[in-house]
Formats: sequence, C-alpha cells, structure tokens
Amino acid sequence: MDLDVLAERLAAGDRRALARAITLVESSRADHRGQTAELLARLGTLGRQALRIGLSGTPGVGKSTFIEAFGLQLTGLGLRVAVLAVDPSSARSGGSILGDKTRMELLSRDPNAYIRPSPSQTHLGGVARRTRESVSLCEAAGFDVVLVETVGVGQSETVVAEMTDLFILLLAPAGGDELQGVKRGIMEMADIILVNKADGDLKPVATRTAADYAGALRLLRKRPQDPEGFPKVLTVSAVEGDGIGKAWHEMTALAEWRRAHSHWDGRRAAQARRWFEDEVRQALLARLTDDPALRARMETAGQRVAHGDLSPAAAAQDILSHLTT
Amino acid sequence: MDLDVLAERLAAGDRRALARAITLVESSRADHRGQTAELLARLGTLGRQALRIGLSGTPGVGKSTFIEAFGLQLTGLGLRVAVLAVDPSSARSGGSILGDKTRMELLSRDPNAYIRPSPSQTHLGGVARRTRESVSLCEAAGFDVVLVETVGVGQSETVVAEMTDLFILLLAPAGGDELQGVKRGIMEMADIILVNKADGDLKPVATRTAADYAGALRLLRKRPQDPEGFPKVLTVSAVEGDGIGKAWHEMTALAEWRRAHSHWDGRRAAQARRWFEDEVRQALLARLTDDPALRARMETAGQRVAHGDLSPAAAAQDILSHLTT
Repeated sequence: MDLDVLAERLAAGDRRALARAITLVESSRADHRGQTAELLARLGTLGRQALRIGLSGTPGVGKSTFIEAFGLQLTGLGLRVAVLAVDPSSARSGGSILGDKTRMELLSRDPNAYIRPSPSQTHLGGVARRTRESVSLCEAAGFDVVLVETVGVGQSETVVAEMTDLFILLLAPAGGDELQGVKRGIMEMADIILVNKADGDLKPVATRTAADYAGALRLLRKRPQDPEGFPKVLTVSAVEGDGIGKAWHEMTALAEWRRAHSHWDGRRAAQARRWFEDEVRQALLARLTDDPALRARMETAGQRVAHGDLSPAAAAQDILSHLTT
Repeated sequence: MDLDVLAERLAAGDRRALARAITLVESSRADHRGQTAELLARLGTLGRQALRIGLSGTPGVGKSTFIEAFGLQLTGLGLRVAVLAVDPSSARSGGSILGDKTRMELLSRDPNAYIRPSPSQTHLGGVARRTRESVSLCEAAGFDVVLVETVGVGQSETVVAEMTDLFILLLAPAGGDELQGVKRGIMEMADIILVNKADGDLKPVATRTAADYAGALRLLRKRPQDPEGFPKVLTVSAVEGDGIGKAWHEMTALAEWRRAHSHWDGRRAAQARRWFEDEVRQALLARLTDDPALRARMETAGQRVAHGDLSPAAAAQDILSHLTT
C-alpha cells in the first residue's frame, strides 16, 4: 500500500490502515523512518485532536479492569477510544500482545475501541517515541480519546505525562503508612487520583485512602494549570462500575477549563518541541548501534579499554574522529 | 605549559600541575578534549591505582565534618588524600569553590590533601565525565585515596558508585519511620553505612539507627563482591573523631578481600568500558549544541514544530539529514 492510500484510509478511520501505520511507526528501518515522517506530516494537516489521557497504575491495582470499564463507558457515549501502552519491560516479559487483548476482552471486541500493546523495545526512549507517534496516528484516525497506560516503574510515568493532556494515577486502597510508597514527583504530576476497589469490604479503606491522598495533595503547591479543587481524588470501583462516570465528568471539566484558560495549546506546543529534540538525540545515538562497522569498532575499542590498553577518553576520541568523516 | 612538562610534573606529585590538568579536563573546548585524551593516555601507562571511595550524604548529615576528620586521619597515617565532588547543582547554587575550602578548613591546608570542588556543569553526565577523568589524574599524581563525595540527589549516587571501588553511605540518626527515606536502590549500592553524630544526646539514637539499618541490609540478597559481614553498618562521630579509625579499617579490609578474590580488576574494567561508551554518547550529543550553525537550525526547527508548521518526526529527519553530510 502506498503512503497516499494509507493516509487516506487511515483518515477515514480504517482500523487496518491504522494498525499498518503503527507497525510502520514501530519499525526502526531508516526507510521506514522516512515514510513515517512523511505520513505524519500529511496527516498532521487534518488538525484533528483527541483528548490524550495518561494513566499509571502498578500491577494489582486493577488497571485492566478499570480501562475496560472506562473504555466501554466512553464507547457507550458514542466516543471512539484508543488504548496504547508504554511498557519498556514488555520486551522481556513477552507475550504482551495476547495479554492486552485478553485482559480487556469486551473492550477489544468493541468496534469503537482500538487496543494496541506496547511496542517491543528494550529502552524507554524507543518506546516513548513510537507511542507518541502512534498517538498522533490515532488522532488522525478520528479517535476522540487516546488513553496511554503505563505500569508505574521508574521514568515511565514522566514519559506518559509528557505525551498526554491529563495524567491520571490509579491507586489501590492502602494503610496510612503505604501512602509514602507513591513518590512525591509522581504525585506532583497527577491531575486526578482514582482510588480503585471502592467496593465490598475495601470500600471504607478506599474512602479513607482517598481522604489521605487528598490531604497529601493539599500540601503540594498550587499549579497554574489547575482550576479550584484540582488535582482531585475520587474513589472508583472498576469491578462494579461505580464512580467511572463521575471520573469522566471531572476529566472533561478539567480539559475544558484548560482549553478555555490557554493551558492547552501551550502544553501541546512544548510537548511537540521536546519530542523533536528527543527524536534527534535518539536517532543520533542509534547510529552507534545501527551501523555494523561502527558497532564492531565500538566493540573492539571497548575490549581494549577493559584490558587497560587504551584510556576511555582516547578510545572515545578515536571513535568520534571516524564519525565526522 | 606543554603536555610533556605537564605530565611529568603531575606524575611527580606537583599540585599546581594537577590543578592545571583538572582545569584542562573540565574544559569543553574540542582541542582541550584532544589534549585531555593524550594526557590521560600518557599518565595511564604509570599504572598507579588509588583506593577510590565514593561517599554520599544528604545535607545536614555532617558530611564536610566527616570528610575533614576522615581526611586528617588518613594524612596522619602518611597517606595522600584527594577529595573530589559530584554535584550537578553546584552550577546553580554557585560559590562551591569557596564553600568546599572553607567547610574543610584544616584539611584544605594539609599538604598531603587536595580538595577540588565539583565542576560547574548543569547536567550530571558532564559532571560525571569530568570527575572520572579527574580521579585518574589524582591517581597518576600519586594519591593513595581518592574520595568522591556527592550530596544524595537523584542519580548522583549511582554515578559516584560507578566510578569508585567502595561506596559509603553517611546517614544521620533517625526514628524508625525515617528509615524508609533511604531508597532501596541506594541501600543496595552501599558497601558500608556510617551513622554519624553518635555523640552526646544522639548517641543512643545513632546506635539504634545503626541496628535498624543492619536489619534492613540483612533483608537484601547477598552480593558476590562481599565477604561475610558486609555490607556493614557502623556508628561514627565526626565531631569527636570516634569510630573513624574503625571505619577506615573496615574499608581497607573490604578492599583487600576484593582484590584477593578477583572482584577488583573486573569491576574497574567494566567501569572503564562504560566510561568509554558514555563518553562517545555524550560527545555525540554535544555536537548538537556546540556547533552554532546546527544550534540555530535546531532552534528554527523547534519553533516551527511548536507552532505546528512541522511535525516533530519531519523536523528531526531534516536535522539528521544535515548531520550525515
């Protein structure tokens, strides 16, 4: 399929064209990178925007159940929803493709939903780049909401927050001591905190946990991008579907306020600029590993350095002098 | 001074030559990078090794007082001690040059000690590279112990642990709850934990804190590079000088065990290799900001991306195409 046809079908909302385009985006082949840039440039002129929602939740917090309930609620409102994932560990654990589809069984069969697992990459930078571009493709394909989920490990929350308009933290009910488990930096990124499992025996604990987090949030300094009352903490029950509608209401209210108070376009512009700079850096570093001759030279020099035959600085100078020619 | 003279004087232990060489190492000028590589290559053939000790401690823990007491103890034993710092924040706070010398007043006047503040760099990668090379210079100048200190913020402990043979964590007496303040990853890097301020009213608390940390360490899995009983927790009083001799004894015992059980050369070789790879990556990325024409092109493209005239991927492709020619 040539790029014209691909772009046209994707813009018409064709799911197979979207899947194909994302596969192109995930490729690291140089010619594919060029085609990706061209495809994104063409689709960018459509000017379509989705609400980009970042969602972080550690394993066991009920993230898949929440996404399924949340996604079905949105498609029930007539909205089209795409779910992407940022999970640099998926390359190691393997099998996330099957995993993502089976853990959200109803949503994956919904014609108004599109679920794409995390690209297989061993480093976060690569996953981040490809996911960002996939978000753009989903927007061009006319999705109303693009949900980017991540398991809360290391830097992945920051990466997701930097490619989304809203950042949601999904937490489990917990004793007061465990509050400390959420790093301050992550708390500061959250726009809305959802305490899941507010059902059955855990309901009172969930309510108390929500109050504790609300107290902790009040200690953080006020951010310009927040209206009164945000960041907000709510309880939800993904299993029973409780509180999901209210959560969606709060997300749209926050998004609308930010659009109306010019905290939207500026953020997107800053994000786009950072992606560009990041892309240049990543691509530059990729040259060190993509070129077989250079990779071999790095290996040889690395061994000489390890044996003490060559200083790290001298070895680096040698490699770099070959890179200028 | 030409490189031959500089290398010769430095190898003879001349402090002014050392200071001059470190200034060369800290320069980012391309010709200085070349001279640095040549200087390090010449000095590397001397094969001199110091005991490289990494020391991390947050502000308020008494780090300067400890380094002064520890350093004076070592010079009292006839050893020559260099103190370097890794502190990426020093560029912002400013004035660390005066600061370092005044906060370790006696040690800074000791002819067998050499104190060098953290190079002024805004990013940790730059500080790391320059500090590593300064460590090599201090070794070539015949120092017996090179102490690399850092204030425990973010990634700086990892950076210091990767350029040293032993990693020491200096902590303050604390209530049981505060133990959690030390991240697990940092605990796992520590070879020896020193609980400072074991004097006066705080002595019982320090003793209890040490027992708590010892308990926490026993929960971590055994590392191959440790003999029985390590990692170890000790109490010290930098103000009164208590426990400093014992701490030094444990450091040398650990270092000797590692040398005898081949956990020394392998670590140094792996470190050297990582430095080399790191140096290549850093230098490659530096080209983006060092070249004025390229910097201007990045700026223009960045603005177009922010305005939405160009996609991040297309802008990156454009920059990268200029980099190949």
